[in-house]
Parts: sequence; C-alpha cells; structure tokens
Amino acid sequence: MTLEFQPPSRDKLELEEGMALTPKFDDQGLVTAVVTDARDGELLMIAHMNAEALSLTLETGIGHYYSRSRSKIWKKGESSGNLQSVKEIRVDCDQDAIWLKVEVAGHDATCHTGRRSCFYRRASIVDGKAGLEVADDHRHFDPADIYGKK
Amino acid sequence: MTLEFQPPSRDKLELEEGMALTPKFDDQGLVTAVVTDARDGELLMIAHMNAEALSLTLETGIGHYYSRSRSKIWKKGESSGNLQSVKEIRVDCDQDAIWLKVEVAGHDATCHTGRRSCFYRRASIVDGKAGLEVADDHRHFDPADIYGKK
Repeated sequence: MTLEFQPPSRDKLELEEGMALTPKFDDQGLVTAVVTDARDGELLMIAHMNAEALSLTLETGIGHYYSRSRSKIWKKGESSGNLQSVKEIRVDCDQDAIWLKVEVAGHDATCHTGRRSCFYRRASIVDGKAGLEVADDHRHFDPADIYGKK
Repeated sequence: MTLEFQPPSRDKLELEEGMALTPKFDDQGLVTAVVTDARDGELLMIAHMNAEALSLTLETGIGHYYSRSRSKIWKKGESSGNLQSVKEIRVDCDQDAIWLKVEVAGHDATCHTGRRSCFYRRASIVDGKAGLEVADDHRHFDPADIYGKK
C-alpha cells in the first residue's frame, strides 16, 4: 500500500469541508462502500473497504474491497471476470462512506447470484407482514458455471 | 412497532431467493440503508436502521433511521423539513442492506451542510496523495438558519 491516510480531523469544519481524504475507519478498520453503475446510477452492491482496499482502488482504478467473511482483500470480479472500472470516487460529509461509480466488465453482473445488482428484491407490507417480491430475475451468468457446483 | 422480522434463514437459498424480509441485523441491531433520489438515482446519504426504523419506514412511507450518535430513532428531515417520501424499498442478496428510493421534500437537500447529497466531494490521487475536490457546492439552505448557530 502506497497511500497513507491521515486520521480524520476532530474539527468538524475541516472534516466536512477540507480537501484531505481522511476516512473515518470504524473499530474494525472499515468504511462502507456504495457501488453504483456509472451508466445509469443503478445501485449494484454494498461492501466494505479497509485502508489497503481504498488505496488499491485509488491507485489502480479497479474496485477493491475487504471481504469480512474471508478476512482478506477482495478484488471484485477476479473469479467471475466482472471487474469494476472505477469512473469516480466520492466521499460523504463525515468521511465514513465511499461512493464508487463503476463500469462493470464481463457479464455486466455484480451479484454472485448472476443478477446485475444485489438489490433484486422489493420489500413491502403484504397482509400485515413484511414480504419481498423479485424486481429483477434476469441472470447474466449461471453461478454454478462461474463459482463451481456447491 | 407493529412489524416483526423473523431471524434470517441459515439456508442460503432461502435467504437469497425467498420472499420473506428477514434482515440480518448486526451485533448492534443495525442494517445499512442506502438512500437514493427516486428521480435520477443520485446517492443522497448512507444511514443505519434498526428493526423499529425499518418497520416505521415500511408502515409510514417516510424514511426513518437509527441515529448512532444520539442512540434513538431519527425521522430524517424532522428539523429541516426535508422529509423523505419512500417510493421503493429493496433489499440485497444476503439481507444486510436496504436501498430506499425517495423523494425529498422541503429544500430538496439531504446533507446537513445544506447540499443535495452528502457525497459532494470527489476523491483522487494528486501528487501522490489522496485529495478531495468539491463536486457540488450548491447549498439549498443555510445550516445556521435550520439547526441554529453553533
């Protein structure tokens, strides 16, 4: 990792209006990353970044995250070919969240289920209960082909 | 709170393809909420929801969150008038994140700094360091007028 991030300023004005990227990593060393499609703004996925993932993303222009389940850096799309080319990176007011606008290579799919977005189900109240319905069921690839049979 | 959420299924297929909303609240009882503008998909803010906030949002159609700094339910826009009318709610594959598409009332601004979105700064590497530049500096309201002088 070549980039170093200074600790976030305790001065609210500096944190919110300053020109230094000083991410507020949580007690696990992570910030939330929101990934949208640069073409049309569709929300594709939510992930987490540690300092190394953020540095790699800034340096290479390819989306890197930190996998909490595997406890390691995760170059998104390395298995599936659906790499993310990062068009723009934004940070929010208190610098604890990152927004990536990306172009997705490969199958143009981000979810491991083969769908374009991880957010393929719509929630609502039906008969007094919170239920889901599928909003997008188009599979751009067969997960069994890409990740192997389970 | 009138809605009850069942614990998330341990069966991956049921969690990812089922029709029950069973959010995976973290050890603090929270899920991540991503809020975009229903008009054009602009990312407005990131927040957190506990079961009560999610239930209130589903029931009332108005965006409710859980404020970690104030440790209480936060009806977004209650002070500023910038209430969020929720047009659609989505959940992601593993049900630990919620996507809200909203229409913002009042000043059409979501950030407490007066800007439309909290993500008003762009990050990039300049001279080997991670720096920021302002991508949107239009203030829709004066924070001092809305929240009082500090």
